[in-house]
This record gives sequence, structure tokens and C-alpha cells, in this order.
Amino acid sequence: MGRWEPNARDRLAQAAMTLFQENGYDRTTVEEIAARAGLTERTFFRYFADKKEVLFGRSDAFHELIATAIAGAPVGASPLDAVAAALEAMAPVFKDRRDHSRARQALLAANAELRERELIKLASLASATAEALRRRGVTEPAASLAGEAGIAVFKVAFERWLQDPKAQDLSRHIRLGLDELRAVTASTGPVTPAEPPRKPAKTARARKP
Amino acid sequence: MGRWEPNARDRLAQAAMTLFQENGYDRTTVEEIAARAGLTERTFFRYFADKKEVLFGRSDAFHELIATAIAGAPVGASPLDAVAAALEAMAPVFKDRRDHSRARQALLAANAELRERELIKLASLASATAEALRRRGVTEPAASLAGEAGIAVFKVAFERWLQDPKAQDLSRHIRLGLDELRAVTASTGPVTPAEPPRKPAKTARARKP
Repeated sequence: MGRWEPNARDRLAQAAMTLFQENGYDRTTVEEIAARAGLTERTFFRYFADKKEVLFGRSDAFHELIATAIAGAPVGASPLDAVAAALEAMAPVFKDRRDHSRARQALLAANAELRERELIKLASLASATAEALRRRGVTEPAASLAGEAGIAVFKVAFERWLQDPKAQDLSRHIRLGLDELRAVTASTGPVTPAEPPRKPAKTARARKP
Repeated sequence: MGRWEPNARDRLAQAAMTLFQENGYDRTTVEEIAARAGLTERTFFRYFADKKEVLFGRSDAFHELIATAIAGAPVGASPLDAVAAALEAMAPVFKDRRDHSRARQALLAANAELRERELIKLASLASATAEALRRRGVTEPAASLAGEAGIAVFKVAFERWLQDPKAQDLSRHIRLGLDELRAVTASTGPVTPAEPPRKPAKTARARKP
């Protein structure tokens, strides 16, 4: 029982996701996860502090990827170019993990506590991005704005990647999102609304069923 | 005791803030808040669902302000111009409330649960902004990106307003933030780092004490 177990981390993560989906996140215990993976609880705790970490354990890795990519961007790179490099550096982590990510997203949709935890994770990635930009000499508020805007692009691109019927690469969605952000912020003139604006909120809401 | 109390809401909010600062948010009870304001608990619950709502009770008002401002933006306004109108519409709510807002920010800095609640509020404002843009005919992902980027500007502008030694208007910080966002996303060429980029993260971190 004490011997090295191949792929223990992946087996535990897979068992946890299966149980979360079958029984709900709240009703799944670490004991059940370990049993389903054919491993011990002790092995589980070698890889994860608790069951929430199965869903959020990669945050430290993302912080490293962001810091390294931004520090390593060419000297002439603009803040947003450096942020783009950081977002692109995160994309490969999700390669072949679209099904896992979709299952994870469904768990978040069903659990407010997990959604809150996701917002905290995203906010900490935006802070890490801004901090890495400041280390390059980018001043405030440019560094914070580029960090927040960059993580907003990642969030929107990630959701679109999960829903994309063509299952195009996450990095493609990130590039499209960055282009769209540039277009949205560059446009100051009329940007064709497809229909004339409706009346203020209350009226518009009242129309809904 | 049952008669109408003038400024009951403000008196309760002020008493709550004072007690939160004196004794900490966690250790303050609704009973104490009501007593400090010279009012009854029943009166407290006429205005607030719980003590957390003293700090977050204005979210609904912000949703309305955003929806109305974006729906009412000129037909030719770009998505970001419409978002700018929404952010400007929120600024007057904070007029003469800088001291209160600074005290509130200090409470958030000391309490992770309150910071999480703030992130949820900001995320819901970004969603409301995107929804109002979609009602104008703005398509995805432009609507979501403009919503997220706009609320990012508000968040950064708000923090800078609280720290501004000159105490300039919040709306000025919002306009500066929007200009800065436009500059950050427009720049693709070299944007002068004040110093050459340092080595990747691990090295840079190791230098810290």
C-alpha cells in the first residue's frame, strides 16, 4: 500500500470530478475520493490540502507562468503585449482538458461558494499580472488596468472556449478576445447598434416574462 | 418608540461603521448597532437585511443606474462610451462619502469575507453592464469585455480616489482611468519601461527580504 502509485494526482482528480458530478460537490468526502481512485486518504493529502484544491490547485502555477512570461517579454513590448504573452502562456495548461474544464464550470454554476472562490482566484491573477508589469517599470494606474483588463479577456475567452461548438484552441479565443478588447476601447465614434436603444431598465425588464 | 425617526437609515449606517471600526466587523451585533443609533432592532431590519448589508446595500441602486445610463446613451455612442456614461452615473453616489468609503475600505482590507463579497458585487456590476450593452445590440464578446473592462476602470479609479492626497472627484479619476485604459490597449509598440525588465519571477522574488 505504501508503494509509489503511478498518476496518483490525476487519478485522484478524476475520481473527485466524477464524484462531484454524481453526488454534488458538498456531499463528496475525501474518503470517498480516495476510495474511488483506489488510493488512501493519506495519498490524497499528499497532493491536495482539501477537496476544494482539486478544483483550484493550479493557482500557484498560474502565478509563476504570468510572472515569468511578463518578465521575459521583449524590452520593447507594450504592457498589453506583455499581458498577452502571459495569457498565451496559460493556454497550454488547458490542452486536452476541455471536458474537465466544462465539468468544472458546471460545478461552479451549481455552487455559489465555488463561484466566489473562482472570483478570488481571478482577482489574484489580475494582481499578479499588475505586479509583474510594475516590475517591468510600468506605472500606475496603467499596470493595474492592464492586469484587470487582461484577466477579463482570459475570463471571457475561457467561457467562449468552453462553449465553442468548433472546439477551437483556447489560445485562439484569447487572441480574438485581445483583438476585441482593442477594438472596443479604440472605438469612440458610432459603433452600429443592431437595433435602436430601448427604454431605460425598468421598462426593458418589465418586458421579460 | 414606534414613531418615525428622522434619518434612521443614515444614523444606523453611521453607528454600524463606528462599531465596526471600534470592535471589528465580526464582533459587532445588530443589537449593538441599533442601541448606538438610539433605535430599535426592528427599525434596523426595516432598512437592512443584516449587518453586511450596511456595507453592500447599494448594489441594487447601482444596477439601476448602470442599466438606465447605458440605455439612455446617445444612439451613436460606442460601447465604451456607453459604459463611461454608466460609470459617471455612479460617481455622484459617493459625493461627500469619501471618509465613509475609506473607513469601509479599511474594513474590507481586514476581513477576507468582506473582500470576497466585494468581488461578487463587482462581478455582478460587470454582468449588469454587459447585459445593458446587449440590450443596445452590442454583440459578444464585445459586450462582456466592455463590461469587465469598464468595471475594472471603476475599481482602479475608486482605489485611486480613496488614496488621492488632493481628494479630486471620483468622476475625474474615472475619466483618467478610461483614458489610461484606451492608451494601454492602443499601444502596441514600445511603451517606455522606466527600467529594463528584470529576470524571471523566481529571481526577482528571491531579492525581496
